[in-house]
Amino acid sequence: MTEKRINAADLQQLPSRYRANLCNSLPGFKSLVLVGTRSSAEVNNLAPFSQVIHIGSNPSLMAILFRPHTVRRDTLENILSEKQFTINHVQASFYEKAHQSAAKYEAHQSEFETVGLTPEFTEAVTAPYVQESSIKIGLEWVETMEIALNNTLLVIGKAVEIRVPTEIIKEDGYLDIEAANTITSSNLDAYHTTQKIDRLKYPQPDQPPTSLPKNLF
Amino acid sequence: MTEKRINAADLQQLPSRYRANLCNSLPGFKSLVLVGTRSSAEVNNLAPFSQVIHIGSNPSLMAILFRPHTVRRDTLENILSEKQFTINHVQASFYEKAHQSAAKYEAHQSEFETVGLTPEFTEAVTAPYVQESSIKIGLEWVETMEIALNNTLLVIGKAVEIRVPTEIIKEDGYLDIEAANTITSSNLDAYHTTQKIDRLKYPQPDQPPTSLPKNLF
Repeated sequence: MTEKRINAADLQQLPSRYRANLCNSLPGFKSLVLVGTRSSAEVNNLAPFSQVIHIGSNPSLMAILFRPHTVRRDTLENILSEKQFTINHVQASFYEKAHQSAAKYEAHQSEFETVGLTPEFTEAVTAPYVQESSIKIGLEWVETMEIALNNTLLVIGKAVEIRVPTEIIKEDGYLDIEAANTITSSNLDAYHTTQKIDRLKYPQPDQPPTSLPKNLF
Repeated sequence: MTEKRINAADLQQLPSRYRANLCNSLPGFKSLVLVGTRSSAEVNNLAPFSQVIHIGSNPSLMAILFRPHTVRRDTLENILSEKQFTINHVQASFYEKAHQSAAKYEAHQSEFETVGLTPEFTEAVTAPYVQESSIKIGLEWVETMEIALNNTLLVIGKAVEIRVPTEIIKEDGYLDIEAANTITSSNLDAYHTTQKIDRLKYPQPDQPPTSLPKNLF
């Protein structure tokens, strides 16, 4: 296996699309979620995001990274105006619809309708959930942080409702998201299912790595 | 399939470990990398991280989320003092060693030695790479942003060297990280291999989702 080394000067000289594909591949596998929002005109908006991070558990805070707000960004604008959004895991059964929801439809069009997914509502948030998704979180907007280096935005929300199949909740709180058929992504356009290898105990300096009991897998 | 709904008040009442497992499962699948650093005393440090994000491609910026700096955090301290670090994908062949490197060893101990991985150096950065890893990035520290809500820290670096197997680079710059055996993680302790389903073309409002040509998979 030969190794290719690319330095900062090489990177500069690559065509922009090539560089974007390369750099988007570097962080490894990513989340894949659909973010549901509702506009002030009550259009149910949907868009895929792959950069979702866990910020904290008490309170339960999650963040999504947005590209700079230099063009129309319905999801971002709806979150900032309505202060609510949903995060819905993408399952293998509807990844093509999830991908398609990234197309540039008109602001008055609902991606739920254009791609064929079903909006669903609860009392907790005004934003729409994706009925077809098996793991869904309703969030209230808390804060927006701008990364001044390139004007990307980290939008932080607090989970106010978590909806998961009872069967995937293990007794220590771990969610078996693989059993729920949640998929993962790489780059911006590649989709992968997963196969669990192991779940390991909290590591101790004086003990070798040890698997957790099978009932926690 | 029955659905469990957990609201913000329910979350508050859960035992702390249970809540942490639950909340860490919510963002979906995560990256899994080993971050290599060198202390001012020249100890080669290694630790696993699962929250790595792509910030931008020009320049190539990546960020890692750190928990609050309230206890000794060797990786964070080394990045802040030495201004350099490496990000190394974890492959299925050494996930147990990667997990074990999170154990609380003494500051003078090198996790490379304690877990049995091999430090490797290039001219680009002073921080150690993981020889066993097949995808490695050398970075220079650029900025640290504190998320004031809970004092977590987003540490941003600029890629100055990218080292990947020539075979996994597709002609549009996409890296087939699955072919490199990179794995993904869920929660803080579960490890998964992947199986690619598809890679899709950039979506257009008037066209159905379409796979990219097989040579780009």
